[in-house]
Amino acid sequence: PPIPYIPPRYSEEEMLERSQQLYNLLNQRRSVRFISPEPVPREVIENVIHTAGTAPSGAHTEPWTFVVVADAETKHKVREIVEQEEEINYKQRMGDKWVHDLRRLRTNWMKEYLDTAPYLILIFKQTYGILPDGKKKTHYYNEISVSISCGLLLAALQNVGLVTVTSTPLNCGPQLRVLLRRPANEKLLMLLPVGYPAPDATVPDLKRKDLSDIMVFV
Amino acid sequence: PPIPYIPPRYSEEEMLERSQQLYNLLNQRRSVRFISPEPVPREVIENVIHTAGTAPSGAHTEPWTFVVVADAETKHKVREIVEQEEEINYKQRMGDKWVHDLRRLRTNWMKEYLDTAPYLILIFKQTYGILPDGKKKTHYYNEISVSISCGLLLAALQNVGLVTVTSTPLNCGPQLRVLLRRPANEKLLMLLPVGYPAPDATVPDLKRKDLSDIMVFV
Ligand SMILES: Cc1cc2nc3c(=O)[nH]c(=O)nc-3n(C[C@H](O)[C@H](O)[C@H](O)COP(=O)(O)O)c2cc1C
Ligand SMILES: Cc1cc2nc3c(=O)[nH]c(=O)nc-3n(C[C@H](O)[C@H](O)[C@H](O)COP(=O)(O)O)c2cc1C
Repeated sequence: PPIPYIPPRYSEEEMLERSQQLYNLLNQRRSVRFISPEPVPREVIENVIHTAGTAPSGAHTEPWTFVVVADAETKHKVREIVEQEEEINYKQRMGDKWVHDLRRLRTNWMKEYLDTAPYLILIFKQTYGILPDGKKKTHYYNEISVSISCGLLLAALQNVGLVTVTSTPLNCGPQLRVLLRRPANEKLLMLLPVGYPAPDATVPDLKRKDLSDIMVFV
Repeated sequence: PPIPYIPPRYSEEEMLERSQQLYNLLNQRRSVRFISPEPVPREVIENVIHTAGTAPSGAHTEPWTFVVVADAETKHKVREIVEQEEEINYKQRMGDKWVHDLRRLRTNWMKEYLDTAPYLILIFKQTYGILPDGKKKTHYYNEISVSISCGLLLAALQNVGLVTVTSTPLNCGPQLRVLLRRPANEKLLMLLPVGYPAPDATVPDLKRKDLSDIMVFV
């Protein structure tokens, strides 16, 4: 049977202050492509993934698997797969326009951070589940649900001062799934290297849109 | 040129504590389908949407539009469109299996909260942009980016004690786009009613997966 739901209630002033604080925190987030090899406590990584797992999901399917790679050899194998495919992506698959659009980000197919970051988090979407009787269980909206959960993960990382770069490695999914021995119902959605920023880390000088450009009031 | 990036750095104890606190906060989030008509300060809504707008996006396209409906008449029109389509969804489009999977959530096509919630936030993904010269600009991974931004929005709402239910109204997009006069490059991705929970709000008695069921360490 349904249960009562009584969340914390804040005064209007508290709501304003809390909303402003979280904006300030998350507005400092940037995608960082230079990650320090310094170790990060494993329990912090567990807590941020636990947080990601509180996301809503279509019909409560919770269709996510977070594979955390800390082993140096496996990280290097991930790097080899990703760089090999990304070189083809940049040179052939993405097309001139896409590559041009990425120019101001100064990204290319070389991903040193895949070796240096203490953790790589590979997020798989479970496109279907398996019921006890062996039948397939549809996972409605699995990609949207897993992406929402990635949003919570990013908030949780920023909240502890860790950095990442959200990436969706094109065409690497099948090889990485095999490398990490994930079952056939799981498809790679995102790869996030996680750690402290390198001391000399830089980011592209991007601006965000104004609130008035993203919000319409009716 | 790139700029230095120096985010706040916390001690390991602080990281552990902060990560645990955010987990506790977000683990209290539930999808709430009974929303109080009490007014909510508009500035809080602006701040949570501003927060959502800090999300990463493929090639920094920021492909999101948040339409906030506060006008009672427009809310009611949204309700009419959604209930009409949802009745067909439940009775015909979704199929017995999907309807069965939703039974423990006790959802159906009646959405009173679309009238009672002080705000409806309709999140549109911009499937392409328009350049100054009138040409189309591709928005890579727009659905993933907008879903991540919805994750930040959910975190921001929870952080101020407001509730919502994430929904992806099947087949309502075209009519809602016309009702809200959004351009042709925008497609409805999600509809979130937002407010305080009703005093007698209940939620389905669901459990979340254990950390060990969603995380794999390599
Ligand atoms: C992509 C997506 C679509 C959803 N669609 C609906 C919906 O149409 N109607 C609804 O009542 N709940 C919807 N939900 C909410 C889920 O049912 C809910 O997240 C799930 O049951 C887990 O409950 P919780 O959010 O309280 O943890 C949706 C959630 C997601 C992520
Ligand atoms: C779905 C998605 C895919 C992305 N893919 C890549 C990628 O493959 N490589 C990369 O360097 N950055 C990638 N990014 C990061 C974006 O380039 C970055 O979010 C954007 O430039 C805005 O910068 P910010 O995150 O610092 O605000 C991706 C972001 C998203 C949301």
